[in-house]
Amino acid sequence: MPTAQILTIGDELLSGDTVNTNLAYLGERCRRLGFEVVRALSVRDRIPEIVAAVADVSVDLCLVSGGLGPTSDDLTAEAVALAAGVPLVRDAASEAAIAAVFAGFGRPMPDINRKQADLPAGCDVLPNPVGTAPGFAASLPRGSYVACMPGVPREMKKMMVEQIEPRLRRRFALPDIPRRVYRLIGRGESAVAVEVEPILAAARARSPGLAAVYLHYRAATPQVLLILEALAGEGGARATEEELRSFDAPLQAALRGSLYGIGEAELEVRVLAACRRAGLTLATAESCTGGQVAGRLTAVAGASDVFAGGVVAYANSVKTGILGVREDSLAAHGAVSEPVAREMAEGARRALGADLAVAITGVAGPGGGTPEKPVGTVDFAVADAETCTHKRVQCGATGRSSSTRRGSWPSSWCGTAWWPAASPTSRRSTTESF
Amino acid sequence: MPTAQILTIGDELLSGDTVNTNLAYLGERCRRLGFEVVRALSVRDRIPEIVAAVADVSVDLCLVSGGLGPTSDDLTAEAVALAAGVPLVRDAASEAAIAAVFAGFGRPMPDINRKQADLPAGCDVLPNPVGTAPGFAASLPRGSYVACMPGVPREMKKMMVEQIEPRLRRRFALPDIPRRVYRLIGRGESAVAVEVEPILAAARARSPGLAAVYLHYRAATPQVLLILEALAGEGGARATEEELRSFDAPLQAALRGSLYGIGEAELEVRVLAACRRAGLTLATAESCTGGQVAGRLTAVAGASDVFAGGVVAYANSVKTGILGVREDSLAAHGAVSEPVAREMAEGARRALGADLAVAITGVAGPGGGTPEKPVGTVDFAVADAETCTHKRVQCGATGRSSSTRRGSWPSSWCGTAWWPAASPTSRRSTTESF
Repeated sequence: MPTAQILTIGDELLSGDTVNTNLAYLGERCRRLGFEVVRALSVRDRIPEIVAAVADVSVDLCLVSGGLGPTSDDLTAEAVALAAGVPLVRDAASEAAIAAVFAGFGRPMPDINRKQADLPAGCDVLPNPVGTAPGFAASLPRGSYVACMPGVPREMKKMMVEQIEPRLRRRFALPDIPRRVYRLIGRGESAVAVEVEPILAAARARSPGLAAVYLHYRAATPQVLLILEALAGEGGARATEEELRSFDAPLQAALRGSLYGIGEAELEVRVLAACRRAGLTLATAESCTGGQVAGRLTAVAGASDVFAGGVVAYANSVKTGILGVREDSLAAHGAVSEPVAREMAEGARRALGADLAVAITGVAGPGGGTPEKPVGTVDFAVADAETCTHKRVQCGATGRSSSTRRGSWPSSWCGTAWWPAASPTSRRSTTESF
Repeated sequence: MPTAQILTIGDELLSGDTVNTNLAYLGERCRRLGFEVVRALSVRDRIPEIVAAVADVSVDLCLVSGGLGPTSDDLTAEAVALAAGVPLVRDAASEAAIAAVFAGFGRPMPDINRKQADLPAGCDVLPNPVGTAPGFAASLPRGSYVACMPGVPREMKKMMVEQIEPRLRRRFALPDIPRRVYRLIGRGESAVAVEVEPILAAARARSPGLAAVYLHYRAATPQVLLILEALAGEGGARATEEELRSFDAPLQAALRGSLYGIGEAELEVRVLAACRRAGLTLATAESCTGGQVAGRLTAVAGASDVFAGGVVAYANSVKTGILGVREDSLAAHGAVSEPVAREMAEGARRALGADLAVAITGVAGPGGGTPEKPVGTVDFAVADAETCTHKRVQCGATGRSSSTRRGSWPSSWCGTAWWPAASPTSRRSTTESF
């Protein structure tokens, strides 16, 4: 199985200015192609540091992103040329393509953009139809294949899929690596491991392929993903897709109540698909999550046939005005309460004309907690035509960071904590802590 | 200036299952403390690979996150012990603390969690009040200081701020590195560079400190951040805060119309602050962005005094029902049109009872584009009590990825593309391409 590393270049990746999403994207593409991604390195926009990183590559494939722009801190082409021991040469076709991009915007090409056409001699130029930076691929002196892409995610992704992946498929003998993802919610990693490890241990005895199955835990509170990957074991034995499926039954039995799905599709995709199958439209009424749940649902292409819309009811006047929450309920129970959650859900159904509505109201913090309702207290409700179900979840209030940004906890905790388990068949109400 | 590297451990970081947000967080904390973060490495959950990564550390500080959990693939303590040449020893205080966490949940401690108390002999144990994994710090044989934290962001952040940073302040002589961030919108990186480079070049001649100022470009379409950092130059000379401020006037002049702010505060923080200063409340009406703009605004702590709420008007029935968009306007002009954007903004003001409302309706793609309104066409409107302003933006439609997830473009492009420049003083309307 060929090995790969991801090299991402840019001060902004090290200084915390930018979250390195390119790494995750390229890692996933590599893995799905059949590469074993063994390391990822990020270095600064400095010639010696990039040269050292490239010269140090000891894997079959090194994917590089960043540093192909027009500015003085864009140095990847120069550094790769140095590492490969070849000069930089201006590529006429790339220069013309860059000029055409500017012409398309009706602007003259700034002189500094010409530099983007200076590429290592003898490299394989990778056109960039959506930006000014061409990419390039080359073999390094020690035999590794290196492919360099712009850092702009949109340009990088297009170049990876359209230019680089076909080259990799031709160049490398890529195995098919079966993998199976078990998606759990509302159970901690340790509690999952206690159930899973004996099942896996028993299976390992059954075949050399199963013995080599690799188990990843990915905790993304309140979710845990359990990923089985059929790595090659002794003599190259590898578990088959079917052998991985043999884990379904024992894991479903052991993880009942927590396992909401098997496979690659994420929670929001499954929520929309479940509604679609049932012929139901969906609406949201969000307070503490502030639109993040609607944002995640609508980020799935094709959400519009299921998702009618949402109300971000941040002010109480919006809860009463649009959603019809009763002033009495707010006064008697507070905005974070079972009656208000229920009235938000029922009001969202009516106001947005949807079959199902989910409501979320909680104490997001950092302020606003009380002994009775500490930060992290969240009331959920789901309403359909006949019923409305409520659940209170305590989202680990003690560990909130002191940062002034509240980050992603509302959507990761609250938006997803309860939907999949909810089947609103009665006016039931429960309380749970994670 | 002491140097640092970030080492993040976990298969999920390389396989694309998890975006490495810990890297950005730790990079930023290090930079602000006065470390020069020179590289970041991610390796898999494999003893030899972690040992090699730790043994290879040649910087003053190595921050490690991940691999301190209870499961079979949590190997950081063992690997650091091997790299440091010391045995693993069970730490009684940590064991008791882990048991106490489970007791707090009313659950027995699974046996596998005991392993989390096995730490390198002689290390400095870092308590984890919000999880089961203690951290630890130690000196490596070659003199580097290594501090290991759990990978769970909430636990990692608390340990970094409360345990590790005080130790680093005591241990290292940390310089103060002035930095200045110029925030631009609606102008490409090249166009910015053409204006900025001559200004910087002229300034470099004025002092050795200015000569050493380092310039980062961070393109996060449609924003560009320009970051000046006072690195140490010849003889340790470093530009002062005041010297960096001397760039304000020439940059403001050169980048007029694009520069929306100077400093660390992000766009959404500035939008809320501007409303707060003006005594205005704010509402949103989102179609293509699906709640992401409201989600970004409400992710800022304290948003509730300004942000009243929002409507995610995905279905046309929500546009007409809640926002009062006229059926006629939808039929005659389509959902992505100037009249509908204006009516959404005016309707959101009324329905949500806010002083200002912003409306966003666009063709998000991947489908739905037409020759007249290709994917990426977005209509914005801002309404106040007297006026409503419209703007159409063309968000680089050609480059949409073929992925089925639409990622973050709506919020990065559409939610932020126009607000700061908008001052709704007339019923004007403009069109712009980025």
